[in-house]
Amino acid sequence: MKIDHDNPPGAGTQVASATRPVKAGYTRALDIRHGVVDMSHGAGGKAAAQLIAELFAPELANPFLGQGDDGAALPLPGFDPAGGELVMATDAHVVSPLFFPGGDLGCLAVHGTINDVAMLGARPLYLSASFILEEGFALADLQRLVRSMGRAAAEAGVPVVTGDTKVVERGKGDGVFISTTGVGVRAPGLAIGGAQARAGDAILVSGTVGDHGLAVLSQRESLAFDTTIVSDTAALHTLVADLLAAAPGGVRVLRDPTRGGLATTLNEIAQQSGVGMRLQEAAIPVTPQVDAACELLGLDPLYVANEGKLIAICAPEAAEVVLGAMRRHPLGQQAARIGTVTTDPHHFVQMDTRFGGRRVVDWLSAEPLPRIC
Amino acid sequence: MKIDHDNPPGAGTQVASATRPVKAGYTRALDIRHGVVDMSHGAGGKAAAQLIAELFAPELANPFLGQGDDGAALPLPGFDPAGGELVMATDAHVVSPLFFPGGDLGCLAVHGTINDVAMLGARPLYLSASFILEEGFALADLQRLVRSMGRAAAEAGVPVVTGDTKVVERGKGDGVFISTTGVGVRAPGLAIGGAQARAGDAILVSGTVGDHGLAVLSQRESLAFDTTIVSDTAALHTLVADLLAAAPGGVRVLRDPTRGGLATTLNEIAQQSGVGMRLQEAAIPVTPQVDAACELLGLDPLYVANEGKLIAICAPEAAEVVLGAMRRHPLGQQAARIGTVTTDPHHFVQMDTRFGGRRVVDWLSAEPLPRIC
Repeated sequence: MKIDHDNPPGAGTQVASATRPVKAGYTRALDIRHGVVDMSHGAGGKAAAQLIAELFAPELANPFLGQGDDGAALPLPGFDPAGGELVMATDAHVVSPLFFPGGDLGCLAVHGTINDVAMLGARPLYLSASFILEEGFALADLQRLVRSMGRAAAEAGVPVVTGDTKVVERGKGDGVFISTTGVGVRAPGLAIGGAQARAGDAILVSGTVGDHGLAVLSQRESLAFDTTIVSDTAALHTLVADLLAAAPGGVRVLRDPTRGGLATTLNEIAQQSGVGMRLQEAAIPVTPQVDAACELLGLDPLYVANEGKLIAICAPEAAEVVLGAMRRHPLGQQAARIGTVTTDPHHFVQMDTRFGGRRVVDWLSAEPLPRIC
Repeated sequence: MKIDHDNPPGAGTQVASATRPVKAGYTRALDIRHGVVDMSHGAGGKAAAQLIAELFAPELANPFLGQGDDGAALPLPGFDPAGGELVMATDAHVVSPLFFPGGDLGCLAVHGTINDVAMLGARPLYLSASFILEEGFALADLQRLVRSMGRAAAEAGVPVVTGDTKVVERGKGDGVFISTTGVGVRAPGLAIGGAQARAGDAILVSGTVGDHGLAVLSQRESLAFDTTIVSDTAALHTLVADLLAAAPGGVRVLRDPTRGGLATTLNEIAQQSGVGMRLQEAAIPVTPQVDAACELLGLDPLYVANEGKLIAICAPEAAEVVLGAMRRHPLGQQAARIGTVTTDPHHFVQMDTRFGGRRVVDWLSAEPLPRIC
């Protein structure tokens, strides 16, 4: 969980971009004594990373949390380590609105956590679910959400094995919040995690970016586009299994670019691995609808959340095999190789733009899309 | 999770009690089409059981969830079953106020989930934590809570290995909610669960009941008693380990009587095991302060939540050994044998009162103490 915030991007590269979120560039420590939680702390960008690094991590410190991934790989005392490791991941889901094109809070809560377990290279086995219900919420809507959750869990083959339900007074919640935790098992010796990227590695993405965030936003703001933008929410564990089978030992990092989007997720990995990255903008898949909607709304699709996409960073010699395996899977048909890991002491993610320029792709810092997942 | 609600208590026994919560005695199915969530659905009593049985269970159905305990015991594919089973439990924590005599939301979220894992006879190993923060919440208070959480986890030897943080807008949450999930491992062949009680078994409780609920209530309502009532919040896993070591195979059911209190928890177990129970009111430990406060407030301590007590149901021949082991542990010094499991097709929990009478001790149905954990 240690993240280095002392290297703001700048000199020698073009930073400005009209559609990129404003860079807060915090250089001051969090003001714990006088500060309050704001929406940016939940956005998955710099402010969230600072809150975790300066408030949560010091109090909860342990080597597992220190892995800094979206889940933890854990030894299982009493079991033969040859069986593998336990992987555990958790997510709170507070998406608003609860129902959106392509999904809802229920299936999202299943997919999101299955994906976090899968991104460590594990086979997800079981989910738990805790529900915080607001007094007055319609039971019919609750049933729709739980039904969607049950269907998503059944389709993924990962059952919800235990749960809890709490109720808060009207005005103290927002319909339903669902926190899910997933556990899985990964093969022994599988070193997959955000710290494993090396210079020269290939950066792949499994499909188009920005769909989920735009789908939620358009529903929330009642935006009507010519074509409905549909969330990509999906469980990615079978895709992961295919990649690992296709290139044993070749995959080094897997991560789903949710809050903060592709740009923020790549910056996290660059920091964790102590590397830089060089992307080709023209290679990043974006649907024409998302592209047009982002243009209209002043958003950059690289910062918009996805719920059914993964980034794979792999050894250069494995890249084509992994890309082929992605494209053969129904959830990876539009997979693309979008860049290369570089040596960079500043851990910058840089991008060759469509117009022949080059710019730094920074972390998300402001919050353009609250409560997207 | 299957609960039989078709046998309301009644004929032949005295049901009324001035200080006992009103019995709703629902005989109608949940009105999912027109109904809404109300506070009773979170109270851990009959309405909560009905919501789980009629709305959640049908949608999420699987054999693990069907175990009906506060956690699930799970096989670990790929590992030698001789290593044991995985146990997983989850709880949402929404206590209000966040700080109360003897504890706070932070340590409660650690203790509550450790206890749910331990109550299946497992050794808790790891916790995950998901935080739902309300915009505007003071970072200093958040730090206090996370610090308390870290301290409780360190004292228990069960680290928080992964987490997630979301933020909701002001007025859409209530400061902080914390959902924790715990995993642990239990020895192979250990059949401990709510369905294991048999006629003739002894019913033990590890100490006084009602302390936690009264501590929270008195803080919330600014009630001043002569002596401050302090929450019993504590991690019970070392107590459980001692009991299991003292009487291998002798312990059949362990459960912490949280929401709904001792009375509701015993009713749950009676239903799960298909047995009755007979309690001796005079044997149930209650501190004079809790007794007096309950008298004043019209509450029955048997329905008030505990966060550091457990019920153990054990084979009659093991009862004295288990009781002795409890009393030697710092958290079980006031342990007592409070009753016996009986054969009863109606699954009633009956109690010999202090006054020589006998009454049915029903499930909690109304909600005297919302948001107690």
